[in-house]
Amino acid sequence: MTGLGVGAEFDRIRAIATALGADAGSFDDDCALIPLPTGDTLVLSTDLSIEDVHFRRAWLTAGEIGWRAAAAALSDLAAEGAEPVGLLAAVGVPAGVAEEDVTALMRGAGDAAASCGAAVLGGDLTRAPTWTVAVTVVGRARSPVSRRGAIAGDGLWVTGALGAARAALVAWERGDAPLPDARAAFARPAPRIAAGCWLAAHGARAMIDVSDGLAGDAGHLAAASAVAVQIDLAQVPIAPGVDAEAARLGVPSAAFATAGGEDYELLAALPPGFDAADAAACHAATGTVLTRIGAVSAGRGVRCELHGRPYSLGGYDHFA
Amino acid sequence: MTGLGVGAEFDRIRAIATALGADAGSFDDDCALIPLPTGDTLVLSTDLSIEDVHFRRAWLTAGEIGWRAAAAALSDLAAEGAEPVGLLAAVGVPAGVAEEDVTALMRGAGDAAASCGAAVLGGDLTRAPTWTVAVTVVGRARSPVSRRGAIAGDGLWVTGALGAARAALVAWERGDAPLPDARAAFARPAPRIAAGCWLAAHGARAMIDVSDGLAGDAGHLAAASAVAVQIDLAQVPIAPGVDAEAARLGVPSAAFATAGGEDYELLAALPPGFDAADAAACHAATGTVLTRIGAVSAGRGVRCELHGRPYSLGGYDHFA
Repeated sequence: MTGLGVGAEFDRIRAIATALGADAGSFDDDCALIPLPTGDTLVLSTDLSIEDVHFRRAWLTAGEIGWRAAAAALSDLAAEGAEPVGLLAAVGVPAGVAEEDVTALMRGAGDAAASCGAAVLGGDLTRAPTWTVAVTVVGRARSPVSRRGAIAGDGLWVTGALGAARAALVAWERGDAPLPDARAAFARPAPRIAAGCWLAAHGARAMIDVSDGLAGDAGHLAAASAVAVQIDLAQVPIAPGVDAEAARLGVPSAAFATAGGEDYELLAALPPGFDAADAAACHAATGTVLTRIGAVSAGRGVRCELHGRPYSLGGYDHFA
Repeated sequence: MTGLGVGAEFDRIRAIATALGADAGSFDDDCALIPLPTGDTLVLSTDLSIEDVHFRRAWLTAGEIGWRAAAAALSDLAAEGAEPVGLLAAVGVPAGVAEEDVTALMRGAGDAAASCGAAVLGGDLTRAPTWTVAVTVVGRARSPVSRRGAIAGDGLWVTGALGAARAALVAWERGDAPLPDARAAFARPAPRIAAGCWLAAHGARAMIDVSDGLAGDAGHLAAASAVAVQIDLAQVPIAPGVDAEAARLGVPSAAFATAGGEDYELLAALPPGFDAADAAACHAATGTVLTRIGAVSAGRGVRCELHGRPYSLGGYDHFA
């Protein structure tokens, strides 16, 4: 997740940390993979959620802080096509936080895990200057899907609808209460585990979650796969409540929804033959809508168009 | 790890979090265990290290912050008798921290992992109000050793020597530079992986690391195993440099070394037949000295004696 006001600076530092050498694995780039003797692969990912960086205490209940932190990490498993086994939650809270709030936070993380058939396996608890939740998820995949496998000719598909979490964020930052659906999208996002597993089993060549914003994460997928990506913004499914917030900012809804982050939907490159009937099968099997929003071609980078004309998105660094 | 000024209050909250119910596993109590189809068990633990709670920035280099955070988590694997596979490091740093410091931190964590034959598998990087490092370790054990298996008649043994890290802490808090050995014990503790695996393979019935202080952690082992534990303080191996700091505070060196935390040594309950020859074999095989400091009996709680008389330790909450 990118968070409030964090972006390109951290991408640069991440790149350096990744380049550390032989004893560094993938750092914030897909999940860590450990092959098991059974042929399955163990899939791990870790994610920090920090007060005033990723959320404000006034916006969320303690239980929602736990749910959201867990869901953010579980979403990384979804993008890998992995089935969650469990999670570990290391929690830091300021002095004086009530016991009920800590148990509510843990219960929230546990509820998010349970919603995907997983359990809280362990954790740590300590003092911290602000609410701090580090969630590490453990999953299992038959054939993990990385962000690196997209090839020219693939279709580009996205789960669910985008922009609701950003609509909540923008409302809060303005001092307003967000609409209930928008608030729920930010506070209790549903990790797309079922859809991720279904897509992995039905030919997904590359996947990534769009928690940094569709535009930015499409760029990550394109760079990792060494391909170009075209997105038709008019096809991007827009969540309810987004139009009003986009209008306030004077930008098209699709631009609002794709430049913003905080959505835990999946972006998938699927083979050319994958069509509307397949998407309907995914919906029937997982309850998750799948929408074709673009295509993969030879080249580099991300090109967006809106109503037939090129449209430039600022990327995902717009809070910086 | 207990950290600076955190103790009983958090034990109480942990107990509540642990009691959350069916979807909560062990929370800060041994490691999380996932049985593999091969008969091995996957062992996981997560540990938060936070500036001004577990360390001060002025005391440690960025590399040492990374090493110490990784070593603290690896020590949990050692206590389980598990062999590390790798670790994930989620790192938060304040705005304006130099790239070199982030890479040095990651390199430090990687060095600690490499010292035990493991690798950094992945991570996350974000902004935080203070330096925040959440390390999750993944290991593998044939027969994991919990803190619950001690039985009456077992001998109580400890690895290495105690008190050096606390000697450094006390010197820093007084405004002095610690002695080099004491500083190194705090800044670059060596997780006792080789000794933990050797002990697990040679009959260890229960193990725990003494990062909360020998007295407190012996209490955890006793409570988990439903036994009583006797410690002869005169037998506790004292690290160089401890005598001077203990004398300043006017307490016996053994009391200083066992009431203080921050040591990543192992406390093990071993069967009655385990003797000095076995300890010598452990030393020869792993390079780690093993010292018998007490025994396990029927009953409850921890009783310490010094030169034949009962000695009351304040427990591990002495910084609170």
